[in-house]
Amino acid sequence: MSTPERTLRIDNGVAITLDQTQLPHARVELVLRDAADCARAIGDMQVRGAPLIGAVGAVGLALALRDDPSDHALRAQHALLLSTRPTAVNLHWALERVRGAVASLEPAARAARAWQEAAAIAEEDVAINEAIGRHGAALLAPLAAPGRPLQILTHCNAGRLATVGLGTALAPIYRLHAAGVPLHIWVDETRPRNQGAALTAWELADAGVPHTVIADNAGGLLMRQRRIDAAIVGCDRVARNGDVANKVGTYLKALAAHHCDVPFLVACPSPTIDFALADGDAIPIEARSPREVTHVAGALDRHGIGALGRAADWAAATDRSSQVPRVVEVRVVPEGTDAFNPAFDVTPASLVTALVTERGSCAASANELQALFPERWPGRTSHRRDHEPN
Amino acid sequence: MSTPERTLRIDNGVAITLDQTQLPHARVELVLRDAADCARAIGDMQVRGAPLIGAVGAVGLALALRDDPSDHALRAQHALLLSTRPTAVNLHWALERVRGAVASLEPAARAARAWQEAAAIAEEDVAINEAIGRHGAALLAPLAAPGRPLQILTHCNAGRLATVGLGTALAPIYRLHAAGVPLHIWVDETRPRNQGAALTAWELADAGVPHTVIADNAGGLLMRQRRIDAAIVGCDRVARNGDVANKVGTYLKALAAHHCDVPFLVACPSPTIDFALADGDAIPIEARSPREVTHVAGALDRHGIGALGRAADWAAATDRSSQVPRVVEVRVVPEGTDAFNPAFDVTPASLVTALVTERGSCAASANELQALFPERWPGRTSHRRDHEPN
Repeated sequence: MSTPERTLRIDNGVAITLDQTQLPHARVELVLRDAADCARAIGDMQVRGAPLIGAVGAVGLALALRDDPSDHALRAQHALLLSTRPTAVNLHWALERVRGAVASLEPAARAARAWQEAAAIAEEDVAINEAIGRHGAALLAPLAAPGRPLQILTHCNAGRLATVGLGTALAPIYRLHAAGVPLHIWVDETRPRNQGAALTAWELADAGVPHTVIADNAGGLLMRQRRIDAAIVGCDRVARNGDVANKVGTYLKALAAHHCDVPFLVACPSPTIDFALADGDAIPIEARSPREVTHVAGALDRHGIGALGRAADWAAATDRSSQVPRVVEVRVVPEGTDAFNPAFDVTPASLVTALVTERGSCAASANELQALFPERWPGRTSHRRDHEPN
Repeated sequence: MSTPERTLRIDNGVAITLDQTQLPHARVELVLRDAADCARAIGDMQVRGAPLIGAVGAVGLALALRDDPSDHALRAQHALLLSTRPTAVNLHWALERVRGAVASLEPAARAARAWQEAAAIAEEDVAINEAIGRHGAALLAPLAAPGRPLQILTHCNAGRLATVGLGTALAPIYRLHAAGVPLHIWVDETRPRNQGAALTAWELADAGVPHTVIADNAGGLLMRQRRIDAAIVGCDRVARNGDVANKVGTYLKALAAHHCDVPFLVACPSPTIDFALADGDAIPIEARSPREVTHVAGALDRHGIGALGRAADWAAATDRSSQVPRVVEVRVVPEGTDAFNPAFDVTPASLVTALVTERGSCAASANELQALFPERWPGRTSHRRDHEPN
């Protein structure tokens, strides 16, 4: 496999990424020229995925210091960027890291140092992705059933689009694909925001990895039918006992995997491990807009006119000049219906076969996490952290 | 509660129902005047739900015999109606019952007798619904947690719209609501066809039962958080050991209920029990069109224009003369993406707390089903039956 383009390129004092709210229907580059651009990109979810948000936040703070390196600006811009997804663990971590690197410097020296630190965060994410790819591939490769491609299920998007490099959960898949191992990915559509259907399907197609989208409801059946050899997902926050907060629905797939003896792997970069957190019960689950459930966004295309539609509507609703399909939202519930939209759930460590970190794989347990990251094991414990979607 | 209108009214030689493909965006009555109308309604899924399909099939055969009571017509129209959903268990059962009632009669006497039998099937369905409502309510009522309405999760649609009367899974809910028991229903949207979001939400709103729609992914989290007191679903076919085939995703919710000690009930009218089937592994699972996964139908309303849309498109795409929202399909995946769409899954009996039949509730086991329906226990076993969606 040729090295794919990075999701975040840092160059000549700007950062370039993709506007993920336009995917999969249009590939639109987003140039981040100042801190406000970065804050808007995170807040509007043009970029998402815990590692990518962290890197974009760091770039934002560096750009802010280029424009005003004063103590006041450092405080204000740090707060502004953090407020866009106020308590995302990687965003908090990355912003703290840039602030820590520059706080003791003279203002005149801050911008260059901050830029260096942001670039380092991005580089390290690429390296973490690479290492998780290596360790995950070693676990997955032997699981193929005889006579067919390795069958892997994934939920949400923990791929290139969620990171600077090759992704977390998808990194082992890209590695195996590059090595010529036949594989096929079952992609949960991941309601309500459809990150699987929209983003994972897009990047797997872009990389030429065979895949099939399924409704989130279908994965249990496929495991019962022995049509899935392993599941691998990313994570938003992991407690030090191995409980995993990830996109809502992860818990249901972990239950099915456990019931069907299918290995369930969690790709887990260490910045996502919250060693201050004793277990997953302490993670509050953010509720997002009901509109993500009651309405679905998608492309109106030639075949997209339903029973009550007419072909003429298509002509009116499609922007023929640009060849870009018109993206609209449709309401799937009766008018006025209420919905509830929790963004995450917590999968207990007992359902997780292995955590795949950049230092290697381990059981989802306090003992094994401590053995792998002894320097991060806490002296004391906080029992409450907020939690943000990716 | 005043007696609600029946989903299928049989009157003056015609049958009247709702076109469910138009729900929840428009309430359109469908008048079935001949066998072809009935076959089209079933085949196009204007009517769905195992019990309702059976009743409409019986009406169709009666209407066919009114137009031509010959042996040839009986055979041909029976075959035509069965082919619309070729192996739906209730459709097969209902058509056989009408054929059995008229086959030995003179042609001139057939139409009246067939009409009588179709009406009896519809009446019996209403009575089954009523009895399941009674037995289910008795199980559910004691489960409410102190200080809050009874919290019940349901998947797909097993309500009025799936039957002639009050439904199967929703019948206990309507009964409790009528008795003044405070309750609140969590409605799984039920991808990919959105029967929960579109149909269950519509009929619960119509009946004034408080409810909230959730993504299918969310139910596990809500059970972990003790926000659900019980789950109740319908079924498409139940094997004699108590394994339950139902809408895909049921298995995942049953796993979560089991893991969280939440009672998981299956409303199970006896025509849906296949006593010839030893267990659920023998039930083949039909795959439906990938388009149900890759595209989502919904209403384009004033707020329905997405980031790339313009208000002007809304004006063009909405039929202002009728005030009916324009229903369109949008594509949620990249162009050309493949999808797989199994319609059902099988929940093992070990995850089912109780089957609620018209004769009472029982454990999901061969012994208890045999005790409740001794006259239907088979002398010998067929290990293969086909299976159809509802």
